[in-house]
Amino acid sequence: MALRSDWSQENCPIARAVDVFGDPWSVLVLREVMVGNRRFETLRRELGVAENILSDRLRRLVEDGMLRKEPYGGGGERPRHEYRLAPAGEDSLPILNALSTWANKHTTSPTGKTMNVYCTTCGLLSDSGVWCTACDVELAVATTAWERPIAPGIHIALAAHL
Amino acid sequence: MALRSDWSQENCPIARAVDVFGDPWSVLVLREVMVGNRRFETLRRELGVAENILSDRLRRLVEDGMLRKEPYGGGGERPRHEYRLAPAGEDSLPILNALSTWANKHTTSPTGKTMNVYCTTCGLLSDSGVWCTACDVELAVATTAWERPIAPGIHIALAAHL
Repeated sequence: MALRSDWSQENCPIARAVDVFGDPWSVLVLREVMVGNRRFETLRRELGVAENILSDRLRRLVEDGMLRKEPYGGGGERPRHEYRLAPAGEDSLPILNALSTWANKHTTSPTGKTMNVYCTTCGLLSDSGVWCTACDVELAVATTAWERPIAPGIHIALAAHL
Repeated sequence: MALRSDWSQENCPIARAVDVFGDPWSVLVLREVMVGNRRFETLRRELGVAENILSDRLRRLVEDGMLRKEPYGGGGERPRHEYRLAPAGEDSLPILNALSTWANKHTTSPTGKTMNVYCTTCGLLSDSGVWCTACDVELAVATTAWERPIAPGIHIALAAHL
């Protein structure tokens, strides 16, 4: 892993935030958990990331209160767990939506497809990633769906069971 | 510089955005230019960053269309320039505000001070970093001021002259 400065004790909240969100893999792990990919092997496959990097980012995201580990299955030889959004992770949604809005506008999609934010309260497309510009409710994880470039036409209700 | 993956050609806009915003120093440089610190030496001093790292990030931010170089002064032996926000850099404001909002809520300020977003149209505090919750206008660079933890009571009009 690259040497990394520690901004967690900085006076400026933007600096403290980059201590978490200034890491590309951490942001992409949060994106995956948002769309319901919660298990190590699924995350590894979806992100195409090395196991040691993924382990490190998951450990940090749990330590930082972004994700929580929850057991699943059982009966097997070794305990299995999945990663679900903790409250600080849920509140990363406006950041992820702001990143998406910025890149839809200022970068070029290789397929020409954008990512769209839908309000699950009214079902309509929202021009904002923070509140629904159609029905005026706040867009939280529980009330947001993403239409991703890899699956046009499909609205993914975010972290449906948290 | 650390080895760094290239997400600029990814299908997902969040991934393309982390290609820029997934670097802590780049985000902090944007923050400084937002508050009017535009010159290399000022940025180096304010950020406490090594010259080679700052040079690299400024070069990348210019390449990515976030900043533009503009000559100033003149008459000296070597050309001098400062860094100003380009359109893509201006549009990073909702991301910076979202990072600040998240960290105000989910991290601990060593001084107990938060960062606050003010609308320069009505002069009032906004609970949102995207639009003014007092007078309902959109918060762009030209209509936003920050009250930073290092200077409570002072409203800094962002990038006043872009």
